[in-house]
Amino acid sequence: MSFKGGFFGKILRIDLTGKTSKVDVLDGDIYRNYVGGALLGTKLLYDELAPHTNPLGEENKLIYVLGPLTGTDTPCASRLCVATKSPLTGTVTTSFSGGFFPAELKKAGYDAVVISGKASEPVYILIKDDQVTINSAEKYWGLNTLDTQLYMKEDLRDKNIRISCIGPAGENLSAIAGIFNEARAAGRKGVGAVMGSKNLKAVAVKGTRQVPIADNEAFRKAVGLMLKYFKESELAYPVFSKVGSSCALEATSALGLLPSNNWQSAEDVDWDALLGPNKMSEFNKTKNACYKCPISCSQVRLVKNGKYSGVSTEGPEYESLFSLGSLLGIKSAAFTIAADRLCDELGLDSISAGATTAFAMELYERGIFTGTDGLELKFGQEEEALRFLRMLAHREGFAAIFADGTKKAAEKIGGNAHQYTLEVKGLELPAYDIRGYKAHGLNFATSYTGADHNKGYSIQEVFGIPVPYAVERLETKGKGKLTKFNQDFAALYDIVTLCEFPAVIAIPSVLQQVIADIMSAVTGIAYTEKDMWLLGERLNNLCKLFNLREGFARKDDSLPERIKNDPLKYGLSKGEVISQADLDLMLDEYYECRGWDKNGVPGAEKLKELGLMS
Amino acid sequence: MSFKGGFFGKILRIDLTGKTSKVDVLDGDIYRNYVGGALLGTKLLYDELAPHTNPLGEENKLIYVLGPLTGTDTPCASRLCVATKSPLTGTVTTSFSGGFFPAELKKAGYDAVVISGKASEPVYILIKDDQVTINSAEKYWGLNTLDTQLYMKEDLRDKNIRISCIGPAGENLSAIAGIFNEARAAGRKGVGAVMGSKNLKAVAVKGTRQVPIADNEAFRKAVGLMLKYFKESELAYPVFSKVGSSCALEATSALGLLPSNNWQSAEDVDWDALLGPNKMSEFNKTKNACYKCPISCSQVRLVKNGKYSGVSTEGPEYESLFSLGSLLGIKSAAFTIAADRLCDELGLDSISAGATTAFAMELYERGIFTGTDGLELKFGQEEEALRFLRMLAHREGFAAIFADGTKKAAEKIGGNAHQYTLEVKGLELPAYDIRGYKAHGLNFATSYTGADHNKGYSIQEVFGIPVPYAVERLETKGKGKLTKFNQDFAALYDIVTLCEFPAVIAIPSVLQQVIADIMSAVTGIAYTEKDMWLLGERLNNLCKLFNLREGFARKDDSLPERIKNDPLKYGLSKGEVISQADLDLMLDEYYECRGWDKNGVPGAEKLKELGLMS
Repeated sequence: MSFKGGFFGKILRIDLTGKTSKVDVLDGDIYRNYVGGALLGTKLLYDELAPHTNPLGEENKLIYVLGPLTGTDTPCASRLCVATKSPLTGTVTTSFSGGFFPAELKKAGYDAVVISGKASEPVYILIKDDQVTINSAEKYWGLNTLDTQLYMKEDLRDKNIRISCIGPAGENLSAIAGIFNEARAAGRKGVGAVMGSKNLKAVAVKGTRQVPIADNEAFRKAVGLMLKYFKESELAYPVFSKVGSSCALEATSALGLLPSNNWQSAEDVDWDALLGPNKMSEFNKTKNACYKCPISCSQVRLVKNGKYSGVSTEGPEYESLFSLGSLLGIKSAAFTIAADRLCDELGLDSISAGATTAFAMELYERGIFTGTDGLELKFGQEEEALRFLRMLAHREGFAAIFADGTKKAAEKIGGNAHQYTLEVKGLELPAYDIRGYKAHGLNFATSYTGADHNKGYSIQEVFGIPVPYAVERLETKGKGKLTKFNQDFAALYDIVTLCEFPAVIAIPSVLQQVIADIMSAVTGIAYTEKDMWLLGERLNNLCKLFNLREGFARKDDSLPERIKNDPLKYGLSKGEVISQADLDLMLDEYYECRGWDKNGVPGAEKLKELGLMS
Repeated sequence: MSFKGGFFGKILRIDLTGKTSKVDVLDGDIYRNYVGGALLGTKLLYDELAPHTNPLGEENKLIYVLGPLTGTDTPCASRLCVATKSPLTGTVTTSFSGGFFPAELKKAGYDAVVISGKASEPVYILIKDDQVTINSAEKYWGLNTLDTQLYMKEDLRDKNIRISCIGPAGENLSAIAGIFNEARAAGRKGVGAVMGSKNLKAVAVKGTRQVPIADNEAFRKAVGLMLKYFKESELAYPVFSKVGSSCALEATSALGLLPSNNWQSAEDVDWDALLGPNKMSEFNKTKNACYKCPISCSQVRLVKNGKYSGVSTEGPEYESLFSLGSLLGIKSAAFTIAADRLCDELGLDSISAGATTAFAMELYERGIFTGTDGLELKFGQEEEALRFLRMLAHREGFAAIFADGTKKAAEKIGGNAHQYTLEVKGLELPAYDIRGYKAHGLNFATSYTGADHNKGYSIQEVFGIPVPYAVERLETKGKGKLTKFNQDFAALYDIVTLCEFPAVIAIPSVLQQVIADIMSAVTGIAYTEKDMWLLGERLNNLCKLFNLREGFARKDDSLPERIKNDPLKYGLSKGEVISQADLDLMLDEYYECRGWDKNGVPGAEKLKELGLMS
């Protein structure tokens, strides 16, 4: 077996200022050690961005990165990593989406597309294998994400072209704007604003190449094994295929750990009955799968009567049931469908958009911010919430104050507004009340991109999935070790690039081995299980180096005030917080497990071990 | 030149009850004399439907008919005629849409698709040239028209497939439901309900054949002449290309003949300033053209701020600016965009849906119908209007009473509700206050399918476009002759099938000649200008025969009570009505010009002349 450098390792570089493009080929060692996805993306950013680059300045880069498995028959591998410096967090960031776009881009022959500079007027990039053109997007500017794809596909007279684009939110540089392809989104951390800041409306792609496999027999064997794990899994087909991510709501709701009313948990509500998988399944219409995905988790849901009759969406995913449901104190499943669709159309990250709405609602109810031009922005108000979401995306009227998420809004509003933000490093917290999931809390505090549930998901705490030792979710001790494990494990999926659903179909070491086997078979490079852990750890250390250079320190590995000070009021985790002392204890342990000092700075030994220092 | 029967004249017959299909080939004489579009469609219905067929029974037929020019390079010829017996009017009916679907269907090799019977469960028809399959549409049932097309195209793994479908309105058998392809609609007269009654969600088509041209040189010459007329026209490129049909609003508004508040003209409003082409152009985003159309009249409009920010639509066309604007007393251009988009999604005819909303509003304000479950259905109320439209399409709650249009609603409500309906034969009046356009009024009264502006548009009265004699719009005398002329002229466009925009680019006789030349060149059959007039007249007489058989009589060639009794209050036509005496005078003259008796029954001589009697 040998490295198929002929296909792999090609980086398409597009400069929007000069309207030029060229192809670089990665050095073989770089390819081997940085592979793709989040690791390759952040490596390029670390090497090519000056410290303190303005995320919305033309000197920032927007990188689409794929993995070695993208576009192959590996299940669940059609994932796109968008890497950039985030305008929401100021950290290096990676945001992911599935769909058909990633496989299509890979088939055009690239492992990454590095977009630099800024176009003088709205443009889109069209990639047809080797042919790369930069074209006017004047006529699409302002259109929502679905209409943009519809009209562009029509104009390109080839509807098999796949399109990744921004909506009004990205154009208006909202730091909570995502990048959308079909109904899939690299939603979080403001990557849509970076795209908007470059006057880039869309990347359209058609790829006609086949991704070569170095050892077909070994590939078939390893993929066959993976599919066997899928089949044996109690989660993959029985749960994910049927209800998608909404299954998580059963788990968090049962423990009283689904946040509501901007994390106030104002009342003891059976959210599972209102928004859980059974309730949501009443709206199921059809399903959609990403390229080569046997699970097909995406539920197309349709409202058949009432004020949202005729509205459908792909989703809402678990996170949106929280951010557009319980977090707003809105008990209507139909509303979550309408709001989810609206966020997709506007090009908003539904988590941060919902969280920002909830934050504004609490400020309004407390009389801290009432300048809403008459809009009664209270918990439970559906029309007002929808109106506010539209305003956010268009940076309109008073909502402009909130258009960059909760942290920046609190800074603008001043006073004690910051007490009601729920964010880490600027990224709004996802749907897990970490007061009752301590490792998840530590993960939110330490993830390189802020409070990101996918960067080290604590499946042991949430679903009781075992690691080789017992885990008690309310315990703080041992959570440093667990969090390092979860983060390095999750990182692999972001690197190769795989969806996270397969991450629960077998025990981690078995999964790492099968992924190593698939990677070896595809690339012709011999990877071991140990390499897999090293890749994950390398990513988390590299990103720490990037963020240190930006000025982030231990104090930024923090948790929101409400998490630290307001005990949970109801349910099986009643009375819980993560105090600063709890966090400090966990941080000390975590840093130590990582081989970092008390300030969270990686030591020379660790960096050498990971090849990040010579 | 000779008739290319090898390609032309093929009728695809699909029986949904038995799930079978077969192809018939038309007899050469039938093809020559009935050609296509409305004439061929109504001929098939006349021959194949028993009198008093239930429009929503499985014995009704839904016919897609194309013309000899469809799919050729003739400009503006990608038109689909849907012919059926209407559930709204009980008459034979034809409804038209443009787009890409018509050309695609023609390229599959058919002049018509006759759909009979009823599927036992939701299905769609897939036509790929000779391959015809009937497939489950369970997963699309309930989805709106745009989502249906999106998901079906994705599922068919071939996005170049063109789809014509119904939305919730058609599924719920609303008699004001249309059939949609992309953002184009065969909107009027409840053709969508007929489709729904057959459990038919969609017809998807891919055609790979080239439409043969019998005499290419003659074809190029005739088409070249037509394009020259386009170029010389003061309307085609300077007006239609720029503002589409919204130009008509300038004309009607200036004369005070744009109906408002359910034709009450409650106040003297400058609708041109509010909803006219200049105002609407502020929302212009991009344009869309039908297949091979040089005009590209369709304006994609986008709302950039306010409560509908981010909403776009193709349109609204002139008619929808009326039905979703002035008719509802709503003075917001942005609202008309949002409501137009909603009607497209729901699969509602925007004219009848708006007119029905306006009717309900007047009943509500007058206290005649107030059982709206708290919905304040008043003129000018935007949210309520949008809610009502959704309810109409889903036949939901109290709105079920209105789901089949104004005439049936008035019958159900009883009392004096009928005084406030504005319809002829059940079809709601379009956007021309005929109290000030007498020939247009006579056309509404006599058109075979009810108050249809496209069946004999009085361009002389509305735009001052000359016929060989002077026309004064407020005069009743001479309008019988003019209306016959306009109807027979317009009929040709419905037969061949051409968009009506080219009908104003040159004088009628010149246009009839160039169309005859194109038809001859395409088909190899020698057509003359006189044949063109005969085709149109044949259609109007054949449809009269159909409707007589259904029991329609002179009394049904009527006008609404408000038109007869309530004088216009403002503007240059103040004080005008069309009294029953006016109408009778015009009808007498019209019938006489047509060679019909005082009861509107065609005489033997006329029928023989037209080949409708032997």
